[in-house]
Amino acid sequence: MQKKKGSLLSFRPDIKVVDATIRDGGLVNNFHFTEDFIKDLYAANVAAGVDYMEFGYKASKDIFDETEFGPWKFCEEEDIRHIVGDNDTDLKIAVMADVGRCNYKRDIIPRSESVIDLVRVATYINTIPAALEMVEHSKQLGYEATINIMAISNAKESEIEEALDLIGKSDVDGIYIVDSYGALYMEQIEELAIKYLAMTEANNKYVGIHAHNNQQLAFANTIAALTCGVSYLDATVNGMGRGAGNCATEQLLGFLKNPKYDMIPILKFLEKHMTPLKESGVVWGYNIPYLLTGQMNRHPRSAIAATNEGRTDFLNFYLELGDKD
Amino acid sequence: MQKKKGSLLSFRPDIKVVDATIRDGGLVNNFHFTEDFIKDLYAANVAAGVDYMEFGYKASKDIFDETEFGPWKFCEEEDIRHIVGDNDTDLKIAVMADVGRCNYKRDIIPRSESVIDLVRVATYINTIPAALEMVEHSKQLGYEATINIMAISNAKESEIEEALDLIGKSDVDGIYIVDSYGALYMEQIEELAIKYLAMTEANNKYVGIHAHNNQQLAFANTIAALTCGVSYLDATVNGMGRGAGNCATEQLLGFLKNPKYDMIPILKFLEKHMTPLKESGVVWGYNIPYLLTGQMNRHPRSAIAATNEGRTDFLNFYLELGDKD
Repeated sequence: MQKKKGSLLSFRPDIKVVDATIRDGGLVNNFHFTEDFIKDLYAANVAAGVDYMEFGYKASKDIFDETEFGPWKFCEEEDIRHIVGDNDTDLKIAVMADVGRCNYKRDIIPRSESVIDLVRVATYINTIPAALEMVEHSKQLGYEATINIMAISNAKESEIEEALDLIGKSDVDGIYIVDSYGALYMEQIEELAIKYLAMTEANNKYVGIHAHNNQQLAFANTIAALTCGVSYLDATVNGMGRGAGNCATEQLLGFLKNPKYDMIPILKFLEKHMTPLKESGVVWGYNIPYLLTGQMNRHPRSAIAATNEGRTDFLNFYLELGDKD
Repeated sequence: MQKKKGSLLSFRPDIKVVDATIRDGGLVNNFHFTEDFIKDLYAANVAAGVDYMEFGYKASKDIFDETEFGPWKFCEEEDIRHIVGDNDTDLKIAVMADVGRCNYKRDIIPRSESVIDLVRVATYINTIPAALEMVEHSKQLGYEATINIMAISNAKESEIEEALDLIGKSDVDGIYIVDSYGALYMEQIEELAIKYLAMTEANNKYVGIHAHNNQQLAFANTIAALTCGVSYLDATVNGMGRGAGNCATEQLLGFLKNPKYDMIPILKFLEKHMTPLKESGVVWGYNIPYLLTGQMNRHPRSAIAATNEGRTDFLNFYLELGDKD
């Protein structure tokens, strides 16, 4: 195994906590958050010492119907400014842009005119060249940019090697390990982290981790990654995110030892907003169908459907999953 | 870091899965399970290839009032036999005996007259000599015996060294890492595992792990331990256990690659019994108060109280915890 970075009592100044509550959580409620929620989350992140806050997607209004989604599906400049003003804080603002779902040449404006700091380009392994074009564009506009390779549990080693070669030669600032299916174990996360870090250390880039909680391993996998040297850590308040959700901010801040992080604003936000949100019927988090899709390395869509239908016939669900290939 | 044992595709024949559903789950409902529940759990464990099933405690009726608890607090021979007959299966039967709460000289009968195979002696670090006396007695009666040192997150390294010395010289078959507070991270579990294994490998004993899910790390910690060479793995169906509960059998069986293990009987049992049990108001599993006591390495009792009271004032709860020392 690899040499570990850092210890349980000290802290690593390279660690950045990235709040992805609106972006991944928005997949649960079509981005229909109240303004109060977003304002309080922003204030909580600033007060908690969180390093980045992802406001949502830069999705194209040519592709997605504005009437179906809240504003954070599109992250218009004026909507973000309405919350953050000129963002005169230490918190950086991030957005996600999906390959093929973003008119980036039109919708990403020069950094000098924007409060956005970081553009995270989400891609599958087979669309890396398109993703790198978006990265290049964002970098030229003045942004920090990452490339987030989703569903990495489905990629072959040879594909990953080739992707890392291409990414190494690019201008991108960081690359993310994204376990979209919540299928990976710590050992596999560590193997990926070592591969990614070999590329980034040679090219002055950083590595991030975005974990899903299908097997209740999101927090554990985040710790495993950071112990290897991964430094950008995605988390969401109360783990809010698609399906089984993500590594929870309140888990992660309890683990990190940097005194700049403060749990209290997150607990306050959680109490004020997340408990009522759950009570209002918005559903996310670990359950047996998510465990099973995670174990079988499948997209969580069938588990999302089972959850929405309130299915408790777990054995049938399991047998159906097995029959699908 | 240590050399890992096994790989993600192969399996280790030394691994044993120990079902602790009744024993740890009984702490949630005072052992008031229906006979149907126990019979079905026994059948499910046999069919799933589970190696041991812990039926409950051998608590003394002089100390605990029989009218307050179900029979599995006491595990009388005839109550176990009523479920398992002569237990003509490959599943072994375990019971737990707490130091100071068990009249073991009276209540543990010779192995030749019992269906019980394994006596697990639960102790704190400061009562190891008393625990070893119980172990010695059980061994003389013909049983397999383990010593399970609870709340190990509160023990000093020097105490652990001394305990391991004493245990190494004893007749005990196995020693358990017990993270009663769900406070430990994988790195700490690995450090303990390495220490325990150094003693057991020199003395022909084995190491087990019993994890709690306060920080959603029970499964991750169990994997971390087994990867180091720990071989007895406690799990409970649906994670049922005190407070935040335990590593879930359905998580663990999805990870283990030994073809003798079968997930289907566990899912069937879960569907038939655990969902209704939860719906009937029996409460266990991860929540924010458990996360906080875990992070702060505290006994879960205040989080159990907060859960029973339905408290959602997480910030107050957190501040109260901090004030308690």
